[in-house]
Amino acid sequence: MDLINALNWRYATKRMIDRKVSQKDLDTIKETISLTPSAYGLQPYKVIVTENKELLQKIHQQACPQLVIEQCSHLLIFKAMKTVSAEYLEEFLQEMKTIRNSSDEYIDGYREKINYVLQNPQIDIFRWTTKQAYIALGFAMVAAAELKIDATPIEGFNPDALNKLLNLDTSKEETVVLLTLGYRDEAEDHLANVPKIRKPLSELIEAL
Amino acid sequence: MDLINALNWRYATKRMIDRKVSQKDLDTIKETISLTPSAYGLQPYKVIVTENKELLQKIHQQACPQLVIEQCSHLLIFKAMKTVSAEYLEEFLQEMKTIRNSSDEYIDGYREKINYVLQNPQIDIFRWTTKQAYIALGFAMVAAAELKIDATPIEGFNPDALNKLLNLDTSKEETVVLLTLGYRDEAEDHLANVPKIRKPLSELIEAL
Repeated sequence: MDLINALNWRYATKRMIDRKVSQKDLDTIKETISLTPSAYGLQPYKVIVTENKELLQKIHQQACPQLVIEQCSHLLIFKAMKTVSAEYLEEFLQEMKTIRNSSDEYIDGYREKINYVLQNPQIDIFRWTTKQAYIALGFAMVAAAELKIDATPIEGFNPDALNKLLNLDTSKEETVVLLTLGYRDEAEDHLANVPKIRKPLSELIEAL
Repeated sequence: MDLINALNWRYATKRMIDRKVSQKDLDTIKETISLTPSAYGLQPYKVIVTENKELLQKIHQQACPQLVIEQCSHLLIFKAMKTVSAEYLEEFLQEMKTIRNSSDEYIDGYREKINYVLQNPQIDIFRWTTKQAYIALGFAMVAAAELKIDATPIEGFNPDALNKLLNLDTSKEETVVLLTLGYRDEAEDHLANVPKIRKPLSELIEAL
């Protein structure tokens, strides 16, 4: 299967050459993120896409010391919502009603289900929205691999510094994970040709 | 691109017909999960795969009232590690040393980087391992879609009840998310032919 080949080809690229990802490929990755499922379909996150060298340099200096931040063609910055406001929810439900021609009863029932989560004091909403963003991260990585674009997920950054640099209102959203896009520099990247390390399938997957 | 077609085809299937996913396709999905990247390559999660009707019935009764749990061909249960033990870490590093022929200096530096996270009191390790499991969830969903297998991610279950049913040692691991695999029952599933609801790309993705 092509997917398996693509996933064997990909790795967490640490050095990239100076080559841009095409608009067409970038659009495919954006569309993939858009098509990613999320709890109740709420998509409680946003993604910043930047190729602005000045901004990338600042991010490298102030929030993430990895060289690939400066070298990449594009950087995706995933931001998760801190809360899902009643306004956001109602806009979503209105869209659902319009697109699916849903009955008021259906919408009311759906609102109730969502509010069961949103108003549950045992559920940490930011933790929940972050998990949704990670599904989108996964989808974006698969899309990149299938397009033979290198992609490096990065958790090792300073979110406070990055939130500040991006002027985020952190009562509403915070950066949660990064993904660089570009093309590997095989000559300079010591990880370019090393074998993957994976648990044996029998340790990862249990049949019951 | 095939990926986009596959993702437009997929949806959170609520009713499935009585048809088994083939061993070949199941193996591809397992391989995809195995190839999913994780922080430092630690793969701090496991996945239970079951098609045991008795167990599925119990899960349906005790931990997750969604009908698709009983109807699916296979259920994947993602479990995230509560802690990454020194023993687990050393086994991983030993594997790295063997597979990549890494120097002791490299291994020591890598251990130090990982321990910076593991020993950071500000980092909630279970939250972190859960996020890694969600990347694998995303990869598995894409694989299923490309194989034209329906897949429903499910967060709405009672983890305590499921942990208990599976006899998990919850000091070591907990169930975090489910994925049913199978084939849609178009006649019975009211979601089978409704349009997707997605934010406009301009609201989901910001260019900076």
